[in-house]
Amino acid sequence: MENPKCRVRIKIWIETEDGDTLFGEGQISVLEAIEKEGSINAAARSLKMGYRSMWGRLKKLEQRIGQPLLIRRKGGQTGGESILTPEAGAMITSFRNLKRRIEDASTKIFEEEW
Amino acid sequence: MENPKCRVRIKIWIETEDGDTLFGEGQISVLEAIEKEGSINAAARSLKMGYRSMWGRLKKLEQRIGQPLLIRRKGGQTGGESILTPEAGAMITSFRNLKRRIEDASTKIFEEEW
Repeated sequence: MENPKCRVRIKIWIETEDGDTLFGEGQISVLEAIEKEGSINAAARSLKMGYRSMWGRLKKLEQRIGQPLLIRRKGGQTGGESILTPEAGAMITSFRNLKRRIEDASTKIFEEEW
Repeated sequence: MENPKCRVRIKIWIETEDGDTLFGEGQISVLEAIEKEGSINAAARSLKMGYRSMWGRLKKLEQRIGQPLLIRRKGGQTGGESILTPEAGAMITSFRNLKRRIEDASTKIFEEEW
């Protein structure tokens, strides 16, 4: 192509064999925010999402994945914390690694092909 | 991960060094529809888009790319035809080839990594 100063961008997500979305960037960002902030409330604030909407997304995600993603600790000084299950942590890491490898491959293919 | 029956999906688009989108699936689909249907009018109908909205997208795309993408022939029995320039044809083919190669690489990486 004529414009040498362009690049390819990608978005990835995981779906079932039947074509239903399992999760993608949005869900992973929610899990990362909870990991960083320590509660659904603080994570919702940091992503400028409503608590209820984030809660709904998490419940739906747990159903789809068939595994608990959060360990909730009610009460305490800060009024309820949430930490990720190891499975949720593995999900974040796997997704980030996958995305990085696919991005690297895409850039390489683009440079060869375009 | 636990669910063996899932797969990775990708969306790709091309952007400038500055991070502005040049084009992606949407623009390529518009060009493909014009190539198939032979006019902006028929292409807009086939994609259930308004004529004006499609026309606006095409003008914007031509500006970004810096090249004419359509050869318009006004009048005639069917009231105006549009055919693609060779550059537009090359753009479709390059994008489809790029997407196919990146999809193949993504599937391979997913199978190795997940």
